[in-house]
This record gives sequence, C-alpha cells and structure tokens, in this order.
Amino acid sequence: MRKIEVCFTPALLPLYDITDSIVVIIDILRASSSICYGIDNGAEGIIPVATVEECMEYGGGDFLLAAEREGCVVEGFDFGNSPFSYTAEKVKGKKIVLTTTNGTQALHESLRADKIIIGSFLNKSALCDFLHRQQQSVLLLCAGWKGMFNLEDMLFAGAVVNQLRDEIKNVDDSGIAAEELYLLAKDDLRGFLRKSSHSIRLEKLNIEEDICFCLQTDICTSVPILENGALRKMAEVSKSGRL
Amino acid sequence: MRKIEVCFTPALLPLYDITDSIVVIIDILRASSSICYGIDNGAEGIIPVATVEECMEYGGGDFLLAAEREGCVVEGFDFGNSPFSYTAEKVKGKKIVLTTTNGTQALHESLRADKIIIGSFLNKSALCDFLHRQQQSVLLLCAGWKGMFNLEDMLFAGAVVNQLRDEIKNVDDSGIAAEELYLLAKDDLRGFLRKSSHSIRLEKLNIEEDICFCLQTDICTSVPILENGALRKMAEVSKSGRL
Repeated sequence: MRKIEVCFTPALLPLYDITDSIVVIIDILRASSSICYGIDNGAEGIIPVATVEECMEYGGGDFLLAAEREGCVVEGFDFGNSPFSYTAEKVKGKKIVLTTTNGTQALHESLRADKIIIGSFLNKSALCDFLHRQQQSVLLLCAGWKGMFNLEDMLFAGAVVNQLRDEIKNVDDSGIAAEELYLLAKDDLRGFLRKSSHSIRLEKLNIEEDICFCLQTDICTSVPILENGALRKMAEVSKSGRL
Repeated sequence: MRKIEVCFTPALLPLYDITDSIVVIIDILRASSSICYGIDNGAEGIIPVATVEECMEYGGGDFLLAAEREGCVVEGFDFGNSPFSYTAEKVKGKKIVLTTTNGTQALHESLRADKIIIGSFLNKSALCDFLHRQQQSVLLLCAGWKGMFNLEDMLFAGAVVNQLRDEIKNVDDSGIAAEELYLLAKDDLRGFLRKSSHSIRLEKLNIEEDICFCLQTDICTSVPILENGALRKMAEVSKSGRL
C-alpha cells in the first residue's frame, strides 16, 4: 500500500525500508533550498559529497566548489550554501561540487532508495506534482542539524504531507505531527520559526535574508534528482507518469 | 544553563549529553503509565529488564513476571503492560519484573543519566513538581515504537515542556514542536490520537479501555525512580529540594 512517511533525522533512516520509495531530501536552511534554486537557475549539475576533503579533490578543474560547515563557508572555497550564491549569473551552465553539514550527509545515506529528489518551499508545487504522478511511496527525509530534529524541516515535510493527503491515506505518526504543525504555522512561517533553537543559531550568523528567501513558496519549477552521482534538473515526465 | 530537551526515540539518545540530567522515560501506551499506576498502588519495586529471557530467569521466586511484546502478554507470563494488571489488589507489596517492547529498552539505554524517573499523564503534576524542585536539566525520552517516533509520547513530552516553560527558557526544537502539538490536542487527546498509526494498531488489540485509562491526568501522586536496578516510589524530597 502506497504510504508517506517522515523521517525526522538521517540517524533514523536505517529503520525505514526505502528500496521502492522516492526519498525527498529536506534541508530548508539552507542546502535543499539552494540546490533547488541553483538547478532552477541552470546549473548543469550539483555533485554532493560527504566531506570537505572530497570537495577539495575537485579543485583545479571546471567546477565551482561549495563547502559549508557550522553555517559558514569553509575557508578557501568559492561559496557555501547561501541561496544568493546560486543565482543564474553565478551558476548557469556550471558544475558545482557541494558539501554541507547536514544536507549532503542525508543524501549519501539515502542511496538505497529507488529515487532521490530534493525538496524545499521554493519548489513545493513542482515537487508535489511529481510525487503525485509517480504513484510510489514517499519518504520525506529531514536533514535536521547534526542528527537532531529541527523545526523548519518538519514544517516543510508537513506541507508536503498536507498537499498529498487526499491521495495517500497511509501516513505515519511523524507525518501526522508534521502536518498538524504546518497547518498551525503556515500563515506565518517566519514568526513560528523564531521560536526555534536552530533559528537563534542562524540569527547569530546574520543570515536573516537567507531565511526569508528560503521560506518563499514556488519560485522554482524544477525538481532536482540524483542521477549518476549528480543532482540535475529532472527530465520531462512522460504522460504515463513515469520517468 | 538549565535546559529541557525532548528525544523522540531511544535510537537518538546517543546524541544527547545526559550525564548531569534527569531523564524522564515516557511510554504512554502503556508501559510508563502502568509503572506509575503500579508504584502508586504500592508495588514494592518494578525491575525493568530488556529481554523476555531475563524476565524468565526470575521465575519460581517471589516475583510477578510481566512481559509484553507487540502489544500482547507473552505466553506463560503473569501479565503484560495493561494498567488494569497493576491495581492495588494485584501488586501491593509485590515485586514485579517487567519487559516491554519499547519502554524498558529506553530505560536501559538511559543508565548514564544522573537520575531516571518515569512519567505519564497519570502522574503529570507530581512529576513536574519534582522536576521543578530539582533545578537540573531535563531530557524527556519518548520510548516510541521500535525506534520510531510516536504521537502519544510526543504529546506528553509537550505537556511537560508546557508546564516547565516559565522556569526553563532553553527548550530545543523537538520540545517546541511537542509543546505546540500538545496545546493543539490537549482538549481532546483521545480524538487527536485517533489520527495516529499507533492508535490504529492498538485498536486492533482491543484495548480502548487501556488507552482511555492512560490518558487520565493526575490520578497518581508518586514518581517512580530507578534505584539499584529497580523502579521504586521516590523517597520524600527534603526542603532543600534535593533528594
């Protein structure tokens, strides 16, 4: 039976059977938002790597190198995971190698899934349209913060559950909790997130503009999908609804 | 700085530093509710063990043996984790050896904490009074279901966060989410839980009476604490607020 589940952190991923599922990676502040924005702006591909060292190995080639740790750009890298680094001007036609504190780790741990795609408020409707057409089970994987639960990823997971609710009745407890919380917060996401510990940490980094940017809905129309080790713009979906 | 955190499943416990904290074990349906009720009804002690085999080793002695797996009493045991097995008539003055699917596992994984106590809606105010007097950091550990998040444990964690909010400002994201959800659900906990997958599973077990019993607030005044391997009624707390 088709189901939708929410995994609150990658640390819990081993408990889920995802071999036949679509895994949606969610790291709202800021990796998944920036990936969606960059792919929408014409980046040819974004290669996610787990460590800063792996990222460095691509140096000297034809790649933009992006590395974020603890919310900051790692010294010596082109940029980190601020969405403002992923404008068309900067990324169009480019290949990017990216490592982030949480998002790329989540991705690497999902490799046994049938498909891995990237979700954020920025591409919410495009994402839900795709999930609707695929008719597969869905696991919404919140990247969290160093293995811990965080509020903004849960809220977006709740938004997706809410949008798919009519067609997928089988929702797990974390999906139910996420949806309820999203419905509570949706009219003022930024205000709701001010309560969160992660938000306080991010405020210290002086990225209020980034946060507001990442909470915009549907400014992107593409859905990044992992193919042969790189995230790319998804190809046209056929009328049968399959890739 | 004193803080209150909510850990949604024992699988995430290794991420938390609990050496100076009080850990509250929460397994609303039904282990922590039954333990609170049994201790309040005069059980001399409840010895939590991780496996059915360990539980059996106490056979032939002066112990009541309680074993639950998959929501049912394990064959050959006196009883499982229904609160109706923990009435004064059945448990007063008795020692009980207990193993359950989730609750006792959570407890065994918390042994590095400063103190381990048991919480449920049944002893909510007594528990919060104790936490108030202790002035230590608190980790609310949801037992969940086989490592997964569940709704009823989160709701109770949220109730405790809500009650301690005025004195502990440092609340993590899972605590914030739990409190918001509790405030949404508190006027009709049973109705809210009908949405949950765990609740559907429990309905199949025909334990509606147990569920309603476990959602009562403050019918117990004692707080079970782990001392020398057994859960016992907490001794009087001195005026200094320390044990």
